[in-house]
Amino acid sequence: MKLATLNDGTRDGQLMVVSRDLKTAQLADGVARTLQKALDDWRFIAPQLDAIYQDLNQGRGRRSFAFDATQCMAPLPRACQWVDGSAYVNHVELVRKARGAELPASFWEEPLMYQGGSDDLLGPHDDISLFHEAWGIDFEAEVAVITDDVAMGATPDQALQRIRLLMLANDVSLRNLIPDELAKGFGFLQAKPATSFSPVAVTPDELGDAWKGGKVHLPLHSSWNGKLVGKPQAGVDMVFNFPQLIAHLAQTRNVRAGSIIGSGTVSNSGGKRGYSCIAEQRCLEIIANGSASTPYMAFGDTIRIEMFDADGKSIFGAIDQTVKQAGAQA
Amino acid sequence: MKLATLNDGTRDGQLMVVSRDLKTAQLADGVARTLQKALDDWRFIAPQLDAIYQDLNQGRGRRSFAFDATQCMAPLPRACQWVDGSAYVNHVELVRKARGAELPASFWEEPLMYQGGSDDLLGPHDDISLFHEAWGIDFEAEVAVITDDVAMGATPDQALQRIRLLMLANDVSLRNLIPDELAKGFGFLQAKPATSFSPVAVTPDELGDAWKGGKVHLPLHSSWNGKLVGKPQAGVDMVFNFPQLIAHLAQTRNVRAGSIIGSGTVSNSGGKRGYSCIAEQRCLEIIANGSASTPYMAFGDTIRIEMFDADGKSIFGAIDQTVKQAGAQA
Repeated sequence: MKLATLNDGTRDGQLMVVSRDLKTAQLADGVARTLQKALDDWRFIAPQLDAIYQDLNQGRGRRSFAFDATQCMAPLPRACQWVDGSAYVNHVELVRKARGAELPASFWEEPLMYQGGSDDLLGPHDDISLFHEAWGIDFEAEVAVITDDVAMGATPDQALQRIRLLMLANDVSLRNLIPDELAKGFGFLQAKPATSFSPVAVTPDELGDAWKGGKVHLPLHSSWNGKLVGKPQAGVDMVFNFPQLIAHLAQTRNVRAGSIIGSGTVSNSGGKRGYSCIAEQRCLEIIANGSASTPYMAFGDTIRIEMFDADGKSIFGAIDQTVKQAGAQA
Repeated sequence: MKLATLNDGTRDGQLMVVSRDLKTAQLADGVARTLQKALDDWRFIAPQLDAIYQDLNQGRGRRSFAFDATQCMAPLPRACQWVDGSAYVNHVELVRKARGAELPASFWEEPLMYQGGSDDLLGPHDDISLFHEAWGIDFEAEVAVITDDVAMGATPDQALQRIRLLMLANDVSLRNLIPDELAKGFGFLQAKPATSFSPVAVTPDELGDAWKGGKVHLPLHSSWNGKLVGKPQAGVDMVFNFPQLIAHLAQTRNVRAGSIIGSGTVSNSGGKRGYSCIAEQRCLEIIANGSASTPYMAFGDTIRIEMFDADGKSIFGAIDQTVKQAGAQA
């Protein structure tokens, strides 16, 4: 099943069911007005959404219309939780190596995760609107899941059963604000502006064999200003799978329905399949040449993030954003 | 105006208007079903809630009933954002001093804040349910505000105008998990379990002269197992006021309606007015005697947090929680 949120001018938008080929959609207003409402009562609501989905796929959607990803908000335009992992430890190791720091051995044994802001999640075509290029604007292409309720102390096996939807994320980062902020010791606040999500969120069964062991076994494509810069395999080098990330989060508290958990920047060791964030490329340059030659994003730059199935069909639709200068800072 | 959320079995509960003396309440169902819905359209909804409030205070509430704080959820049982400051820098300095670390000078100039989880906010009488005493269970008594939308780049003056409600918070902390988690550099995740809030959230005008300069000028009472252990002045030693905290948060992103911002543990320098968290008392003991003699909370312990106006009347009602052992860890 594929779901999306139509921008109807409200804060939470309106839930749509989208056909498998991303060509048609239908409002789910008779079933659940918003995606959060569907997640709040998934066992009851999901079969009704699935009935619409089957009709759409067979061209029998009674009130269907052409699906337009540019009209989408994030599947959850605001969420009760957004937590991002750093499951591709290769990425973390590389960043540390570039600044001459060692990776603690524990990073291979216990997930590194940060609590992000979830009040203002961007749609796939929303501008990345920021005041200053000097902040070091970077994209981070990721896979993310949305959970149902997960009880405190859940095991990874239990957490796996509570994953309801998958989507793509662009965890925009302000690289030049990170060092000072992390030095304060309390995690990210200003260095992580609003995160963006793919137009469509899909149930795990939509991925077929590519959803295995709590990971998505497909490449994630990132194109910066129209040039493909990375297509690392999301199922490779993911040291902690989604169930492990969720179980880590749920160790001391209940996790509630509609929580979004990200994988962290998808990254394969060796850098042979390109990069999912500019920082990684710059780290490779620093290690090789002593300094970075690739700049961060400039106003006007675009970033497109997409994942295709074995037949080359887009699964989630594309995140396709432009970096814009925000109006004068107040 | 005073507002609360009735536990009616739903995830977001039901909005109630509560009389100034906290004796009667009335459902706001004809106006806004939940507090988030009221915040989503505050300019339109607030006057209607205020009309109910005036009736209640004059004993003219047509469908009023006795207000029972034990039936309350958190004013926002789940929120799109919970961010906690450390505005009482004295507290931060003391904790550092106890472990022999110096406080960076920048901590007096720029707020220290962390992004917290907001998917599972506890009501004032909910148990603090955790698996292990060995985690070092501590309370943290705080003041918190709920904002309307705040635009990216807002100044403190602009942020001040966007504060809609105030409440009390118990930012429960697991002290023995903090060192390892902060050493990883990405902030709190497991060390901050679910946060609790006072039964009632009030508009700033309810505080009269006590709301001045973006601070609450009243003492905050904390009683541990029935013994008053702290009543520091919340308006004293608050190095960053709420507008400054909000402006810091909004530097690189829009802050959306229903965001909760906490003050951090209320703490006066010198410790003469007692403590709002056990860690602070232990730090004073370590500095004086080389070791801490006060233990953290045990299963069965209670913590009551409350604030009174100049006439000795409770403003927000009390947070009154018991620490309980959670069922066997899965």
